[in-house]
Amino acid sequence: MRGRFITLEGGEGSGKSTQARRIADWLRARGRIVVLTREPGGTPLAEAIRTLALQRWDEGMTPTTELLLMFAARSAHVHALIEPHLAAGHDVVCDRFVDSSYAYQGAGKGVDVRHLAALEALVLPKLKPDLTFVLDLPVEQGLRRAHARGQNNRFEDEARPFFERVREAFLARAADEPQRCVVIDARADADTVFDAIVAVLEQRL
Amino acid sequence: MRGRFITLEGGEGSGKSTQARRIADWLRARGRIVVLTREPGGTPLAEAIRTLALQRWDEGMTPTTELLLMFAARSAHVHALIEPHLAAGHDVVCDRFVDSSYAYQGAGKGVDVRHLAALEALVLPKLKPDLTFVLDLPVEQGLRRAHARGQNNRFEDEARPFFERVREAFLARAADEPQRCVVIDARADADTVFDAIVAVLEQRL
Repeated sequence: MRGRFITLEGGEGSGKSTQARRIADWLRARGRIVVLTREPGGTPLAEAIRTLALQRWDEGMTPTTELLLMFAARSAHVHALIEPHLAAGHDVVCDRFVDSSYAYQGAGKGVDVRHLAALEALVLPKLKPDLTFVLDLPVEQGLRRAHARGQNNRFEDEARPFFERVREAFLARAADEPQRCVVIDARADADTVFDAIVAVLEQRL
Repeated sequence: MRGRFITLEGGEGSGKSTQARRIADWLRARGRIVVLTREPGGTPLAEAIRTLALQRWDEGMTPTTELLLMFAARSAHVHALIEPHLAAGHDVVCDRFVDSSYAYQGAGKGVDVRHLAALEALVLPKLKPDLTFVLDLPVEQGLRRAHARGQNNRFEDEARPFFERVREAFLARAADEPQRCVVIDARADADTVFDAIVAVLEQRL
């Protein structure tokens, strides 16, 4: 039987990586084989693309170039890691997936949603997450957490309104796809957030 | 006044790079400021993407991933180099451009032309070459030349029918856009080929 594909989405400092690890452990404790991965990245090629996409270039990087790199990395990741594992019956837990492209390059940077939909049709003609957790918290709180852990890449150069648009886009996508997406209040400590996630996992899986 | 954008297309060993240099020199001798560039590549970011796109990966690379990398590199190249120079009135001579994506990833590797058109609409909403030389020669002759100079990248792993489809695609695109494209018989020596190119340049520019 095909494995379950679970993604975590949300802004900077929302605790996605921590919760992704916990979800993977929770599934393993229930006898599942689990692959924990992230985007952009997840395979050697996709990680190499990630490095290019996140670094600062003297020539700059347009939203279009960034978007194409994100989807190139996603294409490699889906082909070489996500799809084979799902087909083998393993669960895949992924820190960020296609919703992040809609939020960051779409809502955040203004790429027309029709271009995003065209790229999704090219790269993901069949693949949708079975369950997506949107970890939501106020932008200011998230940025404070992210800075506290010393995160520093090209995306941190954006101004506050950018991150507000990203947050709104995640919430709007979750509202549009309630069967797939669950919004989790990520303001609390990691244990409390994970309790809320487990309640959903127990109900949905 | 806006500069002229001249591209060279064709298969392996067709002499594009040599002729591109000669065209640039010819234009410079007539008082033009000329930028000579190539795809994939042309800027530091685009060249870094090129390196990823051409190398062999243990995980493989799907035609879709390859296509997205090619257009990501093209997006950077157009934004940071081609457009600013054309706007400044400089001529740009480019060894390969979007026709190569239609020929290699489209006809060669089977990516649906609708996806190619969608990517072209995203990355090149307004830019078309003013003049494209398609350097045509039999596949066997071209591969012999390419091997003789020791060229060796992931594309060289393809079988003969792949290169035949690429050649046919270049010729078909040239036939579809006779205003923009001129097919040049590339079987002859470099001087003879350049004479044919100059005849076109003198007539068209």
